[in-house]
Amino acid sequence: MNILEKLNWRYATKHFDVNKKLSKEQLDLIKEATNLTPSSFGLQPFKIIIIENNDIRQKLQEAAWNQPQTTDASHLVLFAANTHLSSDDVEAFIKLISEVRNVPVEALAEYDAMMKGSIASMSQEDATNWAAKQAYIALGQLMVTCAVEGIDTCPMEGFDKKAFDQILDLPSKNLTSIVMAAVGFRSSDDKYQHLPKVRKALDDIIITI
Amino acid sequence: MNILEKLNWRYATKHFDVNKKLSKEQLDLIKEATNLTPSSFGLQPFKIIIIENNDIRQKLQEAAWNQPQTTDASHLVLFAANTHLSSDDVEAFIKLISEVRNVPVEALAEYDAMMKGSIASMSQEDATNWAAKQAYIALGQLMVTCAVEGIDTCPMEGFDKKAFDQILDLPSKNLTSIVMAAVGFRSSDDKYQHLPKVRKALDDIIITI
Repeated sequence: MNILEKLNWRYATKHFDVNKKLSKEQLDLIKEATNLTPSSFGLQPFKIIIIENNDIRQKLQEAAWNQPQTTDASHLVLFAANTHLSSDDVEAFIKLISEVRNVPVEALAEYDAMMKGSIASMSQEDATNWAAKQAYIALGQLMVTCAVEGIDTCPMEGFDKKAFDQILDLPSKNLTSIVMAAVGFRSSDDKYQHLPKVRKALDDIIITI
Repeated sequence: MNILEKLNWRYATKHFDVNKKLSKEQLDLIKEATNLTPSSFGLQPFKIIIIENNDIRQKLQEAAWNQPQTTDASHLVLFAANTHLSSDDVEAFIKLISEVRNVPVEALAEYDAMMKGSIASMSQEDATNWAAKQAYIALGQLMVTCAVEGIDTCPMEGFDKKAFDQILDLPSKNLTSIVMAAVGFRSSDDKYQHLPKVRKALDDIIITI
């Protein structure tokens, strides 16, 4: 596999083939790969919301400037940041480390205090914004994984986040919608797949010191 | 290639082998792959700063809580957001699209107006934050690409961004440091490589609707 070929193959798919759905194996792989995304401290301060329900996707489409990929793609994957990050989240994470690595919670006291201090130092807005950034790493990992597997994606920021939050009842779960990707398979009539990719020249984006 | 194997192979490398450097081919691939990262509108509102200079890396290490990977890794890759995003950036991008896709600038007027409107609607702080989020997608794409290629990375948010900006003279370039990755090869004595990966159970992070 040549990773550059895969990355050049992908593009922001506008027209998905409505008849092609992800297999269970593909969906399982996407879940697993996205969950493996690294995050600051390892806290994973977001949820990955996979939306299959057609009625809900119709409503979301209206809140996403009627972009067709919202309903045409096999799946919608929405990242939602935790809006109430607290020491409880740190404690749950410390417990998880303790279990997975078979170390006593007491041995993780320094890490626990460091994370709690970091969260306490942020306003709720800053903490949510920080959580959102972690979700963007996951969006990157999702899109590259899909490209490697021959699965198309369209990253989408252009939607009414307040409307999404309401439709999906996210505030009651202490979540807010951040960014999403439509995931599925390109339609053969999507003309965008044939357009040359537009990226800055390396000399315009890379500074070597 | 099994992407899940690659993603499980990677970990936040703490101890790099100081004697193993990226080859020119590997560095070129990393540059190309990271530049291929999708961004909102395609605007790529950030720079990728690759720091090789040892003296500068010593200074950066002091501003990064003395974390050894800052100097031990083969390369440091710092993402810096554009702090003064303006209609000039949109116009440069429109010109690039026009050249790459061989379409007249006039045919892109609607897209041009849409992007300018979007940027004008944001405060400078919001625009920088939005640019930062795009850089996080690129961090994700960089880390997955490296994992696929058997190259180690350590994502790093824990550094004094103001000090980094000063050391690298970023404000004069309308840039601010956001996040970075140390890139290179794990040392055989890095004990972290043997620890089981800690991630939430899929049921705790994924909501299916």
